[in-house]
Amino acid sequence: MVDTASPSTPRTTTPRHLTAETGAITTDEVRVNIPALTEQLMGTWKKERSEARRTAAKPELHQIAGLSMAEHRARVLTQLGILVDEGAIQRAYPVAVGGGNNHGGNIAAFEELVTADPSLQIKSGVQWGLFGAAILHLGTEKHHTRWLPRVITLDIPGAFAMTETGHGSDVAHIATTATYDEAVQEFVINTPFRGAWKDYLGNAALHGIACVLFAQLITKGVNHGVHAFYVPLRDEAGDFLPGIGGEDDGLKGGLNGIDNGRLHFTDVRIPRENLLNRYGDVAEDGTYASPIESPGRRFFTMIGTLVQGRVSLDGAAVAAMKLGLQIALTYGSQRRQFVAGDGAQERVILDYQRHQRRLLPKLAEAFAASFAHERLLIKFDEVFSGADDSDRNREDLETLAAALKALSTWGALDTLQECREACGGAGFLAENRLVGLRADLDVYVTFEGDNNVLLQLVAKRLLGDYSLKFRGADFGVLARYAAEKAGDTVLHGSGLRQLAQSVSDRGSTARSVGHMRETEYQRELLTSRVNGMIAAVAERLKDASKLSKEAAAELFNSNQNQLIEAARAHGELLQWEAFTDALEATTDADNKRVLTWLRDLFGLNLIEKNAAWYLIHGRLNGQRAESITAYIDRLVARLRPLALDLVESFGYGPEHVRAAIASGAEQLRQDEARAYRSAQRAAGTEPVDEKVLRARQR
Amino acid sequence: MVDTASPSTPRTTTPRHLTAETGAITTDEVRVNIPALTEQLMGTWKKERSEARRTAAKPELHQIAGLSMAEHRARVLTQLGILVDEGAIQRAYPVAVGGGNNHGGNIAAFEELVTADPSLQIKSGVQWGLFGAAILHLGTEKHHTRWLPRVITLDIPGAFAMTETGHGSDVAHIATTATYDEAVQEFVINTPFRGAWKDYLGNAALHGIACVLFAQLITKGVNHGVHAFYVPLRDEAGDFLPGIGGEDDGLKGGLNGIDNGRLHFTDVRIPRENLLNRYGDVAEDGTYASPIESPGRRFFTMIGTLVQGRVSLDGAAVAAMKLGLQIALTYGSQRRQFVAGDGAQERVILDYQRHQRRLLPKLAEAFAASFAHERLLIKFDEVFSGADDSDRNREDLETLAAALKALSTWGALDTLQECREACGGAGFLAENRLVGLRADLDVYVTFEGDNNVLLQLVAKRLLGDYSLKFRGADFGVLARYAAEKAGDTVLHGSGLRQLAQSVSDRGSTARSVGHMRETEYQRELLTSRVNGMIAAVAERLKDASKLSKEAAAELFNSNQNQLIEAARAHGELLQWEAFTDALEATTDADNKRVLTWLRDLFGLNLIEKNAAWYLIHGRLNGQRAESITAYIDRLVARLRPLALDLVESFGYGPEHVRAAIASGAEQLRQDEARAYRSAQRAAGTEPVDEKVLRARQR
Repeated sequence: MVDTASPSTPRTTTPRHLTAETGAITTDEVRVNIPALTEQLMGTWKKERSEARRTAAKPELHQIAGLSMAEHRARVLTQLGILVDEGAIQRAYPVAVGGGNNHGGNIAAFEELVTADPSLQIKSGVQWGLFGAAILHLGTEKHHTRWLPRVITLDIPGAFAMTETGHGSDVAHIATTATYDEAVQEFVINTPFRGAWKDYLGNAALHGIACVLFAQLITKGVNHGVHAFYVPLRDEAGDFLPGIGGEDDGLKGGLNGIDNGRLHFTDVRIPRENLLNRYGDVAEDGTYASPIESPGRRFFTMIGTLVQGRVSLDGAAVAAMKLGLQIALTYGSQRRQFVAGDGAQERVILDYQRHQRRLLPKLAEAFAASFAHERLLIKFDEVFSGADDSDRNREDLETLAAALKALSTWGALDTLQECREACGGAGFLAENRLVGLRADLDVYVTFEGDNNVLLQLVAKRLLGDYSLKFRGADFGVLARYAAEKAGDTVLHGSGLRQLAQSVSDRGSTARSVGHMRETEYQRELLTSRVNGMIAAVAERLKDASKLSKEAAAELFNSNQNQLIEAARAHGELLQWEAFTDALEATTDADNKRVLTWLRDLFGLNLIEKNAAWYLIHGRLNGQRAESITAYIDRLVARLRPLALDLVESFGYGPEHVRAAIASGAEQLRQDEARAYRSAQRAAGTEPVDEKVLRARQR
Repeated sequence: MVDTASPSTPRTTTPRHLTAETGAITTDEVRVNIPALTEQLMGTWKKERSEARRTAAKPELHQIAGLSMAEHRARVLTQLGILVDEGAIQRAYPVAVGGGNNHGGNIAAFEELVTADPSLQIKSGVQWGLFGAAILHLGTEKHHTRWLPRVITLDIPGAFAMTETGHGSDVAHIATTATYDEAVQEFVINTPFRGAWKDYLGNAALHGIACVLFAQLITKGVNHGVHAFYVPLRDEAGDFLPGIGGEDDGLKGGLNGIDNGRLHFTDVRIPRENLLNRYGDVAEDGTYASPIESPGRRFFTMIGTLVQGRVSLDGAAVAAMKLGLQIALTYGSQRRQFVAGDGAQERVILDYQRHQRRLLPKLAEAFAASFAHERLLIKFDEVFSGADDSDRNREDLETLAAALKALSTWGALDTLQECREACGGAGFLAENRLVGLRADLDVYVTFEGDNNVLLQLVAKRLLGDYSLKFRGADFGVLARYAAEKAGDTVLHGSGLRQLAQSVSDRGSTARSVGHMRETEYQRELLTSRVNGMIAAVAERLKDASKLSKEAAAELFNSNQNQLIEAARAHGELLQWEAFTDALEATTDADNKRVLTWLRDLFGLNLIEKNAAWYLIHGRLNGQRAESITAYIDRLVARLRPLALDLVESFGYGPEHVRAAIASGAEQLRQDEARAYRSAQRAAGTEPVDEKVLRARQR
């Protein structure tokens, strides 16, 4: 932790920004216990996260704005070598190949690299989180021994050749084929048309000398579905091997330190042993065998092993949100504009209600996303360490990862944009990092699963839970049940919740504002919306099984938007629950109070945003809905004096923030301007204002 | 207009995309009369707009993604020279200096340059719309004669030195001084501290050899407020003149073809005649005189002459929205992903409800913004041509420009981002332009007036109208009046509206969905919300005049967020009204029907977004609110088959769109993949799917 305050506002026991000139703000006796809050935010893998932050602080790993694409790509490749030298990347690998078998700690560390350069994070992710992890999770021991040590050392830079130009979200229907030729015991790889080319692959344009390639495995005339293969790409001179060609994806909206490209394959032959055969193998004679009989379940099991990409994007998005808020809230606490009141002094912009309303709910969201991510990391570690790798926990992990990745990556873009706008023209300068972070993170919302597709997956899980709970029952009754009745079962860790008690008459009961601060009231409102939305869609879909496939698809499609919105509501509930659990575990009394305000701001902001649903469904009356808005206004004003302490608790120092406007430079400018005016007044050289003169002359 | 359909889907009398494989969509007999709609969208200054589009189609004016900042800056400077050679930039100038005195046509043409490169648009805007226009509007004939011809020819590239590091939105409080020295009849320019440096100025870092500088005019010890001065910056070698220095703002989030920079001045002397003296002059002896007595009104009059920046940003934002939608809707009509229904063919992504819900309301918004911009242009031309330059019309123009610029620039960012995400990974490639356009337009939301500050200006106008209307009355009564009673006066062209008839009981009356399609019903709902929000704030502010200045400022601040939201609602109403007027003026019956659907989508989308307000205030009941959502779902499905015709009506050809994914390439890939599958099936070489095999074996 580093004090980011400028020299002119030294750290004292009172919040630094409550200086005389901002007297409009009424102080509160509450103080943030910053070290305790930092400890809490650092989470289970504090050690690994701290190590990664020390690594990410190294100037040689920092993004330099304005490099050409070629320079940036070369720099990031070099940076990957630095990570290898630091021993920073092998935590997740088996001990046998030099790793630490530390899954949670690996992701916690990896995601912190985003603070150095998102290109570095993602290129590392391609190399060790996708290419290497696919060999680890889809291959068997012979593959691990043969390739992983050199993958870890970067002697084999590799691409993860899954996505095709024609198939992104729908991986099951990729068109690349690997056809077994039993005569020579080789697979023959083909991308038979332009849409089948592998595309958007990091390491494909320049650096990859091999790839893990996903293709339809065909043997003896049967397509056994998507499998992964280890395929060498380039020779020692860096030229493509025979039958392989490619294109550079060229400049992108961000992440230009990564050499994304396209690959095509024409009758490329690889040995039978290059099939990563953990979940499906082909014998010498071409006989296919798999430990998982169902082709569908086999596919999802293979894909499921690669969930770490989504987990780490969730964490990186949270880190980027924190950086953005630290920049904008620091600047907002120093920058002044417009005279208010008596006119003696311009007003600090964070003292404007609108500015508070723009930034402080984002701060609350960053805390919610941070605590939710910690939950996700723990679940990820449970599954991949083997502590609890039950089917249910794997499924929970996938649902949780899908929901949280979608929300946090969108949340990061919205937050970074709001921060950029809140810093005005200064926010648009590359030196202040907000535009660069936003540009780099843009693609996070559509890669490793398009967010809308991910939310649809979550929604299908919720629908599944719903129908599982009420199998055979009449959906019309059930819709009312979910909306009105009590149940006390949390169905799954990340699935559909039931309300702890009836909420049917809450909205019409006159209650005070105090009521909204009740944890259980917020929980009921947020839960009832998820359940109500899912129940409503379930009711509309109840006859789908009686329809033709075509008509059922149309019926489903006509409810798609509502379903995705229900999944978003579910994800928000998960974030709120994680925040609530975290604050309930908080021992420092002041921090507990502050976190309660922040959690209330997060929860009530969600309820305000979706007030129409609560009003329509009788969960809120108009008076209550309006009082939520009024209470949010009070909350943001109450949190405003604590904003700098809260961003300081993230634990990032100037070596991570690296934004000129958050360096204290603005405070120095303000102080200099004030000193100039004072000196002028003291010297009697200040010109008289024409307005004042006219008033005098009247 | 150019047919953007791919070769495989030739233009026919039925909408091109209603081919057999998208049979799920039920066609409608309505056809878009594309030429008529294009004519309508091109508006009053069709000729100038068409000329500018022909200019913008020239390859030498197009942005090349990936240029270094230095190369991009040099290229754009060269492009400005091309515009001069084309005679493309002098329309707004007086005939006496070679112009055309054509104000509306000038802006209509200028804003189209955004399709070539937003840097070109903005750098042209700096040179001829700010620097040149300030000489024109704030200077007098001697200035025009002396400098404008060389400004027009680009012999004098110039900066517009208004913003300072310390003052952006609050121009009245800039700190640069111009102190008159009557001994030698010169002004002495100083930027006395770092915050007073001029900043973010295009042409300041490299190319500007002069600037129009805004500074506090001080003579005889009196500060007469902000005035504009013509100040030479660099000598013929390109070096700063004595007393002048600067810094480069460096890389930005976009618009890197513009050399933004900082300038500082230390005792820089300019002749007395360099004061642009239309609204304020200093005699040789130092006596100040102005045709406008009130310093406040004088300041706002000067600033008001520069409104064209906001007008042109509004138009450029509309053009960028159109390009983005043309790209994403073209791709969405060709791209397929996931098998639905019988599984024979993957589904075109625009056939998914979510995709329609994401993009088609944006299309409706683009039409609304386009028609609203045309209104703004007409008003701008009225004022600047002198056809109606009354104070009221000037004030209306400023309010309209502030409201529309804020909404359209935010709308463009949201639209471009949604388009980028709707194109997935392809949307992130620079070659598909969405990321570049978004990056360049990002700063539009905070320059030429920060959008939040602009909306606050609009809100103050609305509050002013409100109190003017009910001067001396009791505000509590008035709040109810505005919310419940009838009035039939449109107060001002861009100010507060009164409802044409009572709406107090609308919400509780059971009506059919058909009701929502009624123009007057939508108008009442949208108008009542603006009035209700303003009345509610007015009620809360009613005692402000009895409070201390400090307490009044606090009271105002505690309502700031609501006020700004009211202004946004007002801007949306203005867009809706412009759309409604345009469709009422539509003569083609089919186009009228289609525009009605689009207008309904725009209006109902606004009402859905703000449903909580209508529910709380009894304007909608729950059933009605839910039926709006259902009706929007129907509207997007109905508009989907018309989407390509609608974007074609924008009139942009491939030379403007220039996105690989909107070139028909995706359709070719789809066709090739389908042909491959067909051939394989015909040849009997298609492998059997393991799933099918297992089903057979059961």
